[in-house]
Amino acid sequence: MQFNLAAKDPHSKARAGTITTDHGQIQTPIFMPVGTLATVKGVHQRELTEEIDPDIILGNTYHLYLRPQIDILEKAGGLHKFMNWDRNILTDSGGYQVYSLSANRKIKEEGVKFKSHIDGSYHVFTPENVMDIQRSIGADIIMAFDECTPYPCDYDYAKRSMHMTHRWLDRCLNRLEEVPYKYDYSQTFFPIVQGSTYKDLRKQSAEYIASVGAEGNAIGGLSVGEPAEEMYAMTEVVCEVLPEDKPRYLMGVGTPINILENIALGIDMFDCVMPTRNGRNGMLFTAHGTINIKNKKWEDDFSPIDEMGITWVDTAYSKAYLRHLFSVGEMLGRQIASIHNLGFYLWLVREARKHILAGDFASWKDQMVRQMNQRL
Amino acid sequence: MQFNLAAKDPHSKARAGTITTDHGQIQTPIFMPVGTLATVKGVHQRELTEEIDPDIILGNTYHLYLRPQIDILEKAGGLHKFMNWDRNILTDSGGYQVYSLSANRKIKEEGVKFKSHIDGSYHVFTPENVMDIQRSIGADIIMAFDECTPYPCDYDYAKRSMHMTHRWLDRCLNRLEEVPYKYDYSQTFFPIVQGSTYKDLRKQSAEYIASVGAEGNAIGGLSVGEPAEEMYAMTEVVCEVLPEDKPRYLMGVGTPINILENIALGIDMFDCVMPTRNGRNGMLFTAHGTINIKNKKWEDDFSPIDEMGITWVDTAYSKAYLRHLFSVGEMLGRQIASIHNLGFYLWLVREARKHILAGDFASWKDQMVRQMNQRL
Ligand SMILES: [Zn+2]
Ligand SMILES: [Zn+2]
Repeated sequence: MQFNLAAKDPHSKARAGTITTDHGQIQTPIFMPVGTLATVKGVHQRELTEEIDPDIILGNTYHLYLRPQIDILEKAGGLHKFMNWDRNILTDSGGYQVYSLSANRKIKEEGVKFKSHIDGSYHVFTPENVMDIQRSIGADIIMAFDECTPYPCDYDYAKRSMHMTHRWLDRCLNRLEEVPYKYDYSQTFFPIVQGSTYKDLRKQSAEYIASVGAEGNAIGGLSVGEPAEEMYAMTEVVCEVLPEDKPRYLMGVGTPINILENIALGIDMFDCVMPTRNGRNGMLFTAHGTINIKNKKWEDDFSPIDEMGITWVDTAYSKAYLRHLFSVGEMLGRQIASIHNLGFYLWLVREARKHILAGDFASWKDQMVRQMNQRL
Repeated sequence: MQFNLAAKDPHSKARAGTITTDHGQIQTPIFMPVGTLATVKGVHQRELTEEIDPDIILGNTYHLYLRPQIDILEKAGGLHKFMNWDRNILTDSGGYQVYSLSANRKIKEEGVKFKSHIDGSYHVFTPENVMDIQRSIGADIIMAFDECTPYPCDYDYAKRSMHMTHRWLDRCLNRLEEVPYKYDYSQTFFPIVQGSTYKDLRKQSAEYIASVGAEGNAIGGLSVGEPAEEMYAMTEVVCEVLPEDKPRYLMGVGTPINILENIALGIDMFDCVMPTRNGRNGMLFTAHGTINIKNKKWEDDFSPIDEMGITWVDTAYSKAYLRHLFSVGEMLGRQIASIHNLGFYLWLVREARKHILAGDFASWKDQMVRQMNQRL
């Protein structure tokens, strides 16, 4: 993997760059649509490629491990072939999903024992087997196995957990040295900064993570319920420490506003279920604010979903029609909203990149944040 | 509306023709995808146009009357504009849906009082108001309000009901003379033959329906549980009576085999929820038989869904991938199966037309029926 920094914004820490892997280039800043179970929910691979056009999507190790299971993915020749997606894929490590199981998992130094949310069967994730699993899934970028702490989290727990995540990182790195690539392309490994909402821990963790000299670095444990200001404060501390010449990935973030604010702090990569999950619930993100399409006010508004027409659904369907589809529970409504929202998210990061390259990102960002803060 | 008969098969009663309306041509035999609530479930209008390519789709008066309701459709300028579909639309009259409400409707000479399946509110459908409603929805082809009898149905009930359907037909025709078209294109009206599974009643009904000289004629009350042989027997009796120079529409039919057998008896138009409903349940129709994609045998079959590649989904996704999507309940699975099945149904009627034009329909039909009768 290569990362070339193309431009830095003069009035913020925003950067524009290009990541190159064996599956092609990723222009940053980038938003990665989430394809949990080898599908971006409700969106055909062709629509994803032709309309939404992300250079990379994300898969979830925990979910893929449970279904279709690793042997099927291996027989298919990896996740790319299984789902017919030729561009880049990143897999998380399962750390966040396992953390979300709360009562149904036990975290120890060795690893995490957890109960499947599907059939209640017991499984163990360790730094070692999660690296093996990610080799088999075959994403282009794979993540360290970490512990994601909740919010709020007391200082002592956050500190102990952070050091365990560091020890797990060493185990991940050792394992990767022993296990070769499974397919005919390489994989890049990103370690994860933890430390909850404590600046000193975040700084300490970032220093440890930076010290391993990985090709890219991630920030985990944010967007777990803390106020946006705390998230931004942590991103700022961490970005000061992480190397400038490597991509920085803020995991699980967030709203369009969160994304622009974090780009301004030096983040290059994002992922979040929000565009698809909220879309399936009838919430549309636009450049001029959010729309709850279930609202009765749209009942006889025959104007296009979004005059901007970023994706074809925006002008092919009216607000009244989309409102009707949600009102009667038709799946086409969820499909349309998912395409619209993902199209908008990708437009937003492409636009951010343009403004970084043009040198006027900071002022554009402030204006966009004001606009997007409206409810339509 | 115009209907031109292009060819008659020498070894069966099959016909190939062209219907021309203000929304364009319909090549027959035709299968009309069902768009109950102004959407063919799980299929974007663009996919419908570009991949499945039917000349006409069907909407359900009962469902559209309840939601989004007629005033919204009028404000939109009719169903075509509301759902952004420029080709032909046919609406049923609600007779079948109201009949399906069984305990929640009361049929009288005046009309049918029924309880909405949505909110339990009471409504009345009469031949007159159903014509008004269909004027407002604005389909190119609109249907008579009829009573659909159940199977089995005793002779006396079937006879009384048939005569009421005939009296209702007169009321429909009277009303249509009084109510002008609502939009800037014309609408064609099809009366419906009833008579349950009694040959003498079917003949009598067909004679009455033929006597009104409509531009096209329909056969209702079949595919309600009777054996296929009884359906074919009724179709045969009715097609002998209905005029040859008008299109014949067999409502609510059926499997791919039912469709070919009824084409052979002289039917030109079909509609059925089967390709989408069974698709959403994991059943795929192919030229070589049916596939239950949920079956474990497809778990590691990485061959294309259908080598024939009628629609792009057939070769873009593998059986193992589609099986996975159904196994985890992902909506993309239902989307793919719906496109595949509709694409196959439309391929089948196009192919039937080709063979009618070539004069070898009967032998092709026999071979296809044998093939499609397999379970893969
Ligand atoms: Zn440490
Ligand atoms: Zn009569």
